Amino acid sequence: MIVTLLTDFGTADSYVAEMKAVLLSRAPGVVLVDISHQAAPGDIRAGQYLLGRAWKHFPVGTVHLAIVDPGVGTARRAIAAERDGHRFVAPDNGLLSFLPPDGRFVSLPVPDSAAATFHGRDVFAPAAARLATGAALGDLGESITDPCSAPLPSPRHDHLAVIGEVVYVDRFGTLVSNIPADAMQPGARIRVEGSDAGSLRRTFRDVARGTLVAFVGSGGTVEIAVRDGSAARMLGVGVGAEVRA
Amino acid sequence: MIVTLLTDFGTADSYVAEMKAVLLSRAPGVVLVDISHQAAPGDIRAGQYLLGRAWKHFPVGTVHLAIVDPGVGTARRAIAAERDGHRFVAPDNGLLSFLPPDGRFVSLPVPDSAAATFHGRDVFAPAAARLATGAALGDLGESITDPCSAPLPSPRHDHLAVIGEVVYVDRFGTLVSNIPADAMQPGARIRVEGSDAGSLRRTFRDVARGTLVAFVGSGGTVEIAVRDGSAARMLGVGVGAEVRA
Amino acid sequence: MIVTLLTDFGTADSYVAEMKAVLLSRAPGVVLVDISHQAAPGDIRAGQYLLGRAWKHFPVGTVHLAIVDPGVGTARRAIAAERDGHRFVAPDNGLLSFLPPDGRFVSLPVPDSAAATFHGRDVFAPAAARLATGAALGDLGESITDPCSAPLPSPRHDHLAVIGEVVYVDRFGTLVSNIPADAMQPGARIRVEGSDAGSLRRTFRDVARGTLVAFVGSGGTVEIAVRDGSAARMLGVGVGAEVRA
Repeated sequence: MIVTLLTDFGTADSYVAEMKAVLLSRAPGVVLVDISHQAAPGDIRAGQYLLGRAWKHFPVGTVHLAIVDPGVGTARRAIAAERDGHRFVAPDNGLLSFLPPDGRFVSLPVPDSAAATFHGRDVFAPAAARLATGAALGDLGESITDPCSAPLPSPRHDHLAVIGEVVYVDRFGTLVSNIPADAMQPGARIRVEGSDAGSLRRTFRDVARGTLVAFVGSGGTVEIAVRDGSAARMLGVGVGAEVRA
Repeated sequence: MIVTLLTDFGTADSYVAEMKAVLLSRAPGVVLVDISHQAAPGDIRAGQYLLGRAWKHFPVGTVHLAIVDPGVGTARRAIAAERDGHRFVAPDNGLLSFLPPDGRFVSLPVPDSAAATFHGRDVFAPAAARLATGAALGDLGESITDPCSAPLPSPRHDHLAVIGEVVYVDRFGTLVSNIPADAMQPGARIRVEGSDAGSLRRTFRDVARGTLVAFVGSGGTVEIAVRDGSAARMLGVGVGAEVRA
Repeated sequence: MIVTLLTDFGTADSYVAEMKAVLLSRAPGVVLVDISHQAAPGDIRAGQYLLGRAWKHFPVGTVHLAIVDPGVGTARRAIAAERDGHRFVAPDNGLLSFLPPDGRFVSLPVPDSAAATFHGRDVFAPAAARLATGAALGDLGESITDPCSAPLPSPRHDHLAVIGEVVYVDRFGTLVSNIPADAMQPGARIRVEGSDAGSLRRTFRDVARGTLVAFVGSGGTVEIAVRDGSAARMLGVGVGAEVRA
């Protein structure tokens, strides 16, 4: 059984290891896979983007443990969910908004003994371990029908173009938009906050070094990059920047 | 069998992977878990703090391989230890000072063939692999009774307060003190180098954004944070800063 | 079966996790080991250095998946190779130049469905999964005899000294040269861009703090470090700097 981990904890401290220790203690033999621990502290939106694109590639049955949790220790609920044979455990703060809100969700009890600042170790990892060792979703808590839903923005159309925005910036400074490839007009030019990135190319080597280039990225949406450079730095933009296509 | 790894090697170079290669070659089937590789170069104290809080969460039988080793290649001893069914392999420089010094320790032989700057790969990983494949502690070397002991500082009391210090700063800029929750006077206010962090709260959401807050952290001691910010940056303090409670 | 991963993807994004998801989906039970994901973007030479020293320490049969691929999506070939019972999967851009070019190499087909910017997930990981589940090298593609070969530079000799260069700088700022220990004249002094690092020592503790020191590193070549400091920073040099010994 595979358990993936996505957090904003970084990898310098012992927090991720303590969660893994709980998982390995309660679900011996589980296979642990890090998705990312580098979401900016409290950046629920980045966590949602990363898990939202990665989870489908894992085998059916995988448990996804996701913790970007600025409200830890407050009354925000802890939840688990199920979708297409995958299971998810997370704070109820919108982190799982890539799942349809009419899916199966349960609310997890929070024991008094849980450290108020580390539900990852004391609430979420134990819940993930139970799912990884055969518990059904319904064994973990009461069904809920109102999970917090804060999905990434959708693009809109005006009479001239599709208007979306940057929803993620990756290590290479590539600007990932929310515009699906098939939403574009054929031959449309892509503009980021007014800068022209040309029409869609296949890959960044289709332009000269240092040049802006737009293509359909590996997540299925339009991305804007600079060949051998950083579009985020060259354009001075980031998440929320307008993309027209 | 689980082997954990804690080093100051970072993850950019091949050093951690070479240790893992040795472990997987000599102890096939071992499960490897990174605790941290981001201790600052030579920061034995940070390594001690991190392993000292993480190890207990792992299953009995786990082998903990810890290498922050500024004296590599010198006459400092290489050691292994056992405690509560856990085993430890490390340089004898205080890194294991969270273990009581009257416990079981052995000194590991250092073969001439070991690279003088990489005992992690050539001395410690092979020893950990032996422990992970059934060797007893006594099979690895001669017992010693004088391991290097340099424990983290303990708080002291004056007639007014408990006086401790910051022993670790985490990714979020949270100041982790050495003051156990039960050492405090009920209702006492917490001060860091003179700045008032108020009385103990449950979690950082109990104060307004950008405000100092003190709580009992997930390691069991008093921590000082800034909600949605960094206490280390706001106060300009770090390890060694005085904490009064 | 072990699959190692070396990329320039970093660990903040979901890219490495998506490759691991493909590997675990297609080769259940495979053991994944990260070598490094921190090669600078497009730095084929660093990738070559890191994998070139790490691979031999892994058990025979290991599959090494290496992706530093600035030409992704272009006509550059995707290849797999075999050497001493190890298997390798990588873009054909010199990343595997530590292997003798007269070894066994095959060219991998690139399906039209592969994302043009993410062959790691859609071409290389599936190929590695096939090797990890029993496929022979020849099952993956046509043999080739002309893999791209761009090996790290070799040192030369003049009548006075061996003249090499820095081929890698590690986390500690240590300058790793390409001069094998046995190529040096006994007793020769080591100079980096004219700065004297003295004659070979065993380890960095053989000099005073803050002092330059040369020794034979764990990769078998001459390295120049500063005790408790960074030689790269102190000398202001990096990859390509001349080393005379």
